[in-house]
Amino acid sequence: MVYPYQALYQFTYKVFTAMGCSESDAATASNVLLSADLRGIDSHGVARLSGYVRLWQAGRINTKPQIKVIHETPSTAVVEGDRGLGLVVAPFAMAIAMQKAEAVGTGWVAVQNSNHFGIAGYHAMMALEKDMIGMAMTNASALVAPTFSKEKMLGTNPIAVAIPANEQPPFVADFATTTAANGKLEILQRKDLETPTGWVQDQAGQPSSDASILKKDGALLPLGSDREHGSHKGYALGSIVDIFSAVLSGASYGPWAPPFPAYIPMPENMPGQGLGHFLGAMRVDAFRPADEFKQHMDQWINRFRHAKPISPDQPVLIPGDPERIMEKHRLTNGIPLLSAVIDDLQQTGAIFGISLV
Amino acid sequence: MVYPYQALYQFTYKVFTAMGCSESDAATASNVLLSADLRGIDSHGVARLSGYVRLWQAGRINTKPQIKVIHETPSTAVVEGDRGLGLVVAPFAMAIAMQKAEAVGTGWVAVQNSNHFGIAGYHAMMALEKDMIGMAMTNASALVAPTFSKEKMLGTNPIAVAIPANEQPPFVADFATTTAANGKLEILQRKDLETPTGWVQDQAGQPSSDASILKKDGALLPLGSDREHGSHKGYALGSIVDIFSAVLSGASYGPWAPPFPAYIPMPENMPGQGLGHFLGAMRVDAFRPADEFKQHMDQWINRFRHAKPISPDQPVLIPGDPERIMEKHRLTNGIPLLSAVIDDLQQTGAIFGISLV
Repeated sequence: MVYPYQALYQFTYKVFTAMGCSESDAATASNVLLSADLRGIDSHGVARLSGYVRLWQAGRINTKPQIKVIHETPSTAVVEGDRGLGLVVAPFAMAIAMQKAEAVGTGWVAVQNSNHFGIAGYHAMMALEKDMIGMAMTNASALVAPTFSKEKMLGTNPIAVAIPANEQPPFVADFATTTAANGKLEILQRKDLETPTGWVQDQAGQPSSDASILKKDGALLPLGSDREHGSHKGYALGSIVDIFSAVLSGASYGPWAPPFPAYIPMPENMPGQGLGHFLGAMRVDAFRPADEFKQHMDQWINRFRHAKPISPDQPVLIPGDPERIMEKHRLTNGIPLLSAVIDDLQQTGAIFGISLV
Repeated sequence: MVYPYQALYQFTYKVFTAMGCSESDAATASNVLLSADLRGIDSHGVARLSGYVRLWQAGRINTKPQIKVIHETPSTAVVEGDRGLGLVVAPFAMAIAMQKAEAVGTGWVAVQNSNHFGIAGYHAMMALEKDMIGMAMTNASALVAPTFSKEKMLGTNPIAVAIPANEQPPFVADFATTTAANGKLEILQRKDLETPTGWVQDQAGQPSSDASILKKDGALLPLGSDREHGSHKGYALGSIVDIFSAVLSGASYGPWAPPFPAYIPMPENMPGQGLGHFLGAMRVDAFRPADEFKQHMDQWINRFRHAKPISPDQPVLIPGDPERIMEKHRLTNGIPLLSAVIDDLQQTGAIFGISLV
C-alpha cells in the first residue's frame, strides 16, 4: 500500500510527541526518519519507528534530553546526547559543526551518548545549503566480522559525504562500510532468497549464502568481501568510523556498541556512553571561491556522467542520483509500505491511541 | 639481492641532489620514498625513482619549487606545489595542517600543482608524534573505471588514516580505493600469473583475469569489484578522494589527472594545476584528554587483536601491523630488490655518475 508523505509524517510526528518529545524535536526526528523513506532507504525509515518506541519503553531513549557541548576548540566540539534520539542529537551536532566552519573554515563534532541517527546522508546534506561539504558517520550494533575473524566486532558503520555543485545536483555518497547493508538481507529473507556469495559468513567464518545467517551467529562481511578482494580495506574503513564516532567522543565502541533491538541486553563493561557519531563541515570557500569550486564540480559531474558506459542502457551514475530520483518520485506518488510494516505501525500507533490513516 | 637501508638512502639522496634538489629536500624525499620500501610497499619505493627522474627530464618536476600557501583560514590552507616533488610538497603541507591543528584543533590542507607523493601513510603518520590523528589522500593517473563504465576515470586514489595509541602501536590504515593496487598486478605480470576475478576488466568492461589488461585498454575495478559486491562504494570513495584532493585545491581531476609515466602525454584541456593531495590533522585533545583517548585506543586495539579468529594460525590484524613488522625486519635485514629494479637503478644512477654499491 502507498501512503502520501504527509500522512506518514503526521503519524510519525504524533508518535514522537506522544513519547514526550517537544514539538520541535518531534518535527526534526520525523524529517530525518522519513528522509530515508523518501530516498528509498526503506530499512532506515518509518519501518524503524517501532524500534525507537521499544528503546524508549526500555528506558534507553530520553525524549527530553539536555543535549550539550562538553568540550570544544575553535574547530571541534564533543556533544553529550543525554540518551536523546539520534534523529535529534545528530542535527544538533551538525549545526555546531557548521557554526564552527562558518567561524574558522571547518567544524568537526564527535557525539557520545546518542543512538541510531537515521540515514547518515541527511546530516551530511545539511551542509549543502551553506556551500559547505558535509560529512557524517556513526558506529552501530556489532554485526560485521573483521577480516580473519568469526566474531561480530563492528557495525555497518556508514559514511556520508555531501558536496555542493552549481547547476548539477549535489554529489551525495552515503554507504555502509560493508559489502551489503543489513536491509538488503531482510529483503531477501522476506522473499526466501539466498544472498550472493561474499555478503555474509557463517558462525565458523566460512562462506554462506543464507540471508538469515545473522540469526545463526553468522556475520556481515566488510566491503571487499574477502582478503583477496580487499576486505581488509572495508574492515579498516569500518574501524575508522568506529574510532572517530566512539573513541574520540567517549561513546561505546566496537562490540560494546549498544544494540538497536531493545530485547538484546546491553553489553557488559561498556567503555563509554551510548552510541557515537562524527559530523564534519568544511566551508568550500575556506579553500577556493565557492562559485569556482561549484563550477568545477559541475564539470566533474558532467564528465563522470558521460564516462563511456559498458551498456548503452545503463549510464554511469553520480553518487546520490538514485536517491534523488526516488525522492522526487515518492514526494509525488507516495511511499509504498510492506504489509508487515503497516501492521507494525498500526500496533505502534495503538500504544498511544494514534491511527495510521 | 638485499641492500641495507642506508645504502639505498645514500643512493636516492645523491640522485635527488644531482637533480637539483636542496640537501634538505633531497633528505625529505629520500625519507618518504624509502619509507615505502621499509614498510613493504615495494611498488611505491625506490623502484619508482627512475620514474621521478624521467618526469624531471621531461620538465614536469621542478626541483627548486617555491612551495607556498595561496589561501587560508584558521583551520584550512591551499598549498601551491610549484611542480615540486610530491615527496617534498606533501610533508610541507602536512606540517601546515599540524600547525593549524595546534592552533584551532584541526587543520586541513588541499594541495595543487604537485605530483606523486609516495605512500599516503608516511604523511598521515607525521601527525602521530604530536598526539594528532593524521589523514592523507591523493588523486593519481586514471586507471580505474567507475561502476557501469568501461572508461578509466579515477586513480587508485589512496586514503591513509593514522591514529595514536598508548602502549599499543598506532592504528595506521593506508589503502588504495580499488580492489587491488596496481603494484599487485605488476607482481603477477612478472610471474606470468592471472589475477583473481574482480580485480580488473577488459576494454569492453567485461570481467578479465589478465594481469596485463591495463596495457590493453582495460581498467582496475573500484573496491567492491562489481555492483553486487558494492563497487559503487569503492567508486564513491575514489571520487571523494579525487574531489578533496583536486577540485578543492585547484588541481587537475578525474581523467585529466597528470600521468606518472613521463612518456604518456599530458591530457588536453586540463581543468587545474598538476596532481592534488588532501592532508588533515586533528589534535586528539581537541576532543578529549589525550591520555584518556590513547588508553581507549589501547583497549580498542587489544579487543580487536583478540577477536575470535577463523583459523588459530591467523589472528586478526590491526591496520598497520604488517607494515610495522616489515619495517622492523627490513631495517635490520635490509631491503630486497628485484634484479629488474637493480638494473633500473643502475641506469638511473649512471645518468648522474652515481653508483649503487
